[in-house]
This record gives sequence, C-alpha cells and structure tokens, in this order.
Amino acid sequence: MKNPLHILICNDDGIDAPGIYALAQEIKNIARVTVVAPDRQQSAVGHAITMQYPLRAMPFQKNGEFFGYAVKGTPADAVKLAVKQLLKEPVDMLISGINHGSNTAINIMYSGTVSAATEGTILGIPSVAVSLTTYGEADFSVAAKFAARLVQLVVERGLPPGTLLNVNVPHLPPENIRGVKVTTQGRSSWEDTFDVRCDPAGREYFWLTGHMNVTDTDPDTDQVAIGEGYISVTPIHYDLTDREQLARMKGWNVASLLSRST
Amino acid sequence: MKNPLHILICNDDGIDAPGIYALAQEIKNIARVTVVAPDRQQSAVGHAITMQYPLRAMPFQKNGEFFGYAVKGTPADAVKLAVKQLLKEPVDMLISGINHGSNTAINIMYSGTVSAATEGTILGIPSVAVSLTTYGEADFSVAAKFAARLVQLVVERGLPPGTLLNVNVPHLPPENIRGVKVTTQGRSSWEDTFDVRCDPAGREYFWLTGHMNVTDTDPDTDQVAIGEGYISVTPIHYDLTDREQLARMKGWNVASLLSRST
Repeated sequence: MKNPLHILICNDDGIDAPGIYALAQEIKNIARVTVVAPDRQQSAVGHAITMQYPLRAMPFQKNGEFFGYAVKGTPADAVKLAVKQLLKEPVDMLISGINHGSNTAINIMYSGTVSAATEGTILGIPSVAVSLTTYGEADFSVAAKFAARLVQLVVERGLPPGTLLNVNVPHLPPENIRGVKVTTQGRSSWEDTFDVRCDPAGREYFWLTGHMNVTDTDPDTDQVAIGEGYISVTPIHYDLTDREQLARMKGWNVASLLSRST
Repeated sequence: MKNPLHILICNDDGIDAPGIYALAQEIKNIARVTVVAPDRQQSAVGHAITMQYPLRAMPFQKNGEFFGYAVKGTPADAVKLAVKQLLKEPVDMLISGINHGSNTAINIMYSGTVSAATEGTILGIPSVAVSLTTYGEADFSVAAKFAARLVQLVVERGLPPGTLLNVNVPHLPPENIRGVKVTTQGRSSWEDTFDVRCDPAGREYFWLTGHMNVTDTDPDTDQVAIGEGYISVTPIHYDLTDREQLARMKGWNVASLLSRST
C-alpha cells in the first residue's frame, strides 16, 4: 500500500541522538519519513538561524543504512534547508524530537526542539514538538507511539496557520501515565546562577547554571500536568502580541512622545 | 542631582556598534547607565543561550573611556550575566538596541535585539527593544531620543510582568515621521531561498538568502505602520499559548490517544 503521508523529522539533540531514531522508526509505520537534523547537539539555541556562514548537508548512516541528512547548523536552519532546498516533494507534517528533557513553561523560549516545529509552522507545515521529561537514561517508546497517534489526529483535524503543538511525555511506564491533557504554557522559570571560576592566567569565567523554579500550581499548565503524570499537549503560536496590554496602552497617549522627542 | 534610575543597555549588533553608543549617550541624560553587550555581531541568534561553554566579560573602551562590558556570548547570555553576576545594584529598566534594521512581524522570532529584552522581562525587569528600520547608513538620533522619552513613560505607567515593548523607528528625518502607533505584530514572513555553491572539492554548500514578503495590509500592524512612516510600539509577551486553539482542542478527545498508544 502506498502511504500518502510524507513526514519531515528534525530535532535539536543532533541526528545521532536516540530520541530522533526512536521517533523515525515509529513514524515509518504510518508515513514516508525524511530526517533532516543538526549534525550535533544544539540544545538552548532558541530560534537561531545561521546567516554569517553557509550551511552544509551530509548523508548520515545509522546501523549501516541511510538515515537522513545531517546539517551543520541550528534546528531552524535544518528545517529551512530541508523544505526549501533538499526535499523534492512537499511535506505533510513536521515532527521535532523526541527531545531528551522537558520543554515546558519558560523552557519553550530557549528550546531548539520547539524552534524546529515553529520554523515548520512558519513555512506552512503542520508541526509538532515532542519531548520526554527525563534527563537520565530514557525509554522513548511511549512518546514515539503517542507521537504517531497524535500525527494521525492532526492530519484528521488540521491545525490553523501559525499554530503548532508542543507535547511533553512523562518518563513513566505506560501503565502509570494518568492521561492526556490539553494545557497552557506554564510560567515557571529558571533561577539562574553563575559558577565563577578562574583560568590558569587568573581571569574569571562564568558557567551558567541554576535550577527550574516550579511556581505553577494550575493543573492545566504543561508544568503541573507532567508533574502529575499526564501527557501534556499545548497549542502554541508565534503571534506574540499582548492584546490586553495593547488595549491598556490606548490610554498612554504615546503620540505625545513624538513632539517631545524630535 | 542624584538620578534614581539605573538602566541596563544591551544589543545584538555587538558592543562596538554605533546604535548602542547613540542609545547609551542619550539615556545617560536621564539615568545611570550600565552597558553589557555581546563582544561581536549576534544578529538572528534568536533566544539562544550558551550552555556548552563558559562566558567571559571584558571591560570595553570607547573613545578612550570605559563604555561597558563585552560578553563572549549571545544577547540573552549578556543580560543573564549582567543581572545575575556583574551588576552589584538592581536594574530599573533594560533597553536593547538600537538595532540596525527593523524587527517587525516574523523577524521578532529570530531577533537577538528582542531576545535581550525578553530575557530582561523573564528576569523581572521592565524591558524595551528598539530598532531603526534601515540597513544602510544610519542616523540613530531620532530613535535614541524617542527611546529616552518612552523609558520615562514606562517608568510612570509600568509594564505587567511578562510583557515587553518592541519599538521600530522609521529611518526618516524627524519632520517626516507621521506619529506613533501602538501596534500588533504583523504576519509578514521571509521568502527563504538558498544560494547553492560548490567548494573547491566540488561539494555543495548553501547560503541562506531571500527577501521579506510583506503581506500585511492592516494599518495597525508593526509592518504597515513603519512603512507608512509611523513609529511602531508593540506590546509583546512570551505566553505562547494559543487559547483559541486550546478551546477547539477540547473537542479533539486527546485522551483516546493514550489507550490506543500504550
């Protein structure tokens, strides 16, 4: 049977990461898959793109077989290059992941995994980011199977232009996952600290460190949902306009700033 | 007279760029200024942070005087390091810019200038990003004066937690600027193309290129406002939740995906 779906898979952990392999293997059961991903770890690159250097794409083998294209660039670079240059046929959907570690609350802002899906959305492709909430040894099977089911639902239902789904799967045995929740982005953020060290010449340098400060209590946020053992699916978009503040600012008389400033 | 305001200035064009110098000189008239900015051009880095290397900060001279700290890192790195490590006193506001080139519509997603202001907001500091809409030779004076006036208005009015202002100033003589508009983020995006070249060994490489495809027609968007000669002030936030889609997805029965997937 010819499968009509063509799915692009990307990530930010690099093309050799186990999460993207588990995802590609699972999605191959329901679609034709093309993998185009960064050639190395790109976590926390945000929505960076490369403009000062050219990109390269190299065929990448896994277990002795062609697996996909490794791009020397960021996740957003990889998606742009795949869609606009490497792929000869249209893409029906993009899946980014499976990320090793959660992408919830404030982490979405820094996430290369979400960035790849955002870039897909910008390019008009329904896109989903999938993360597994562990930093330890990981079993990606539950998340991969869930991603495959969700893809089929998204194909049925569609996504509006400009909207993507950010999925976080708790790292639990299947029987301990309590359900699936459609959530909002939480507001928990990092409590940053810097570890100050001195180089052999006595000059200071600074390692970014810190911990996630979980302040969310609303059970409908991504952060609380995963903590309670639910798979979290958050619809996000890249219209950043704060419309409440916009309404408030109608009363600010910003026009008066011009006469005073020029 | 002791000035009570302490303002942190950052950018993404690098600490040696003329835009940050013009901004700092102007803001010094109304506040105590600390400059902490990347040591080199960081455009299109999005909200990247550096986790695989340590950061360094070096004192940077301009015109024979101490100007600020140059950080080997991204705009978001510079802001984190400034606030959490380098500065001994609290910051009342952050201004990022003045960027050489507009940051409107989709460009906000890739912008290091906006990223620095977003990071300030995440750290609880009222923050403003300022860009000048030219890529040619630039006169930053109108934008710098406007920024100083806006800062005073923001101090009076305040900004809600999680909200920042993204300002774009048309590169026009002051008498040709038609006014100031509070705008929404436009939806215009890049039409990406890749310029394919071959290295001396015959291997292909790809330069990202393309042009901004201006599709916005709503006069209340940032994109149209600057095109019509208005200064654009857009309130943006980093709550990416798409609440309309969230409401729609209540009918998707996502819970059923779990029983099928495990």
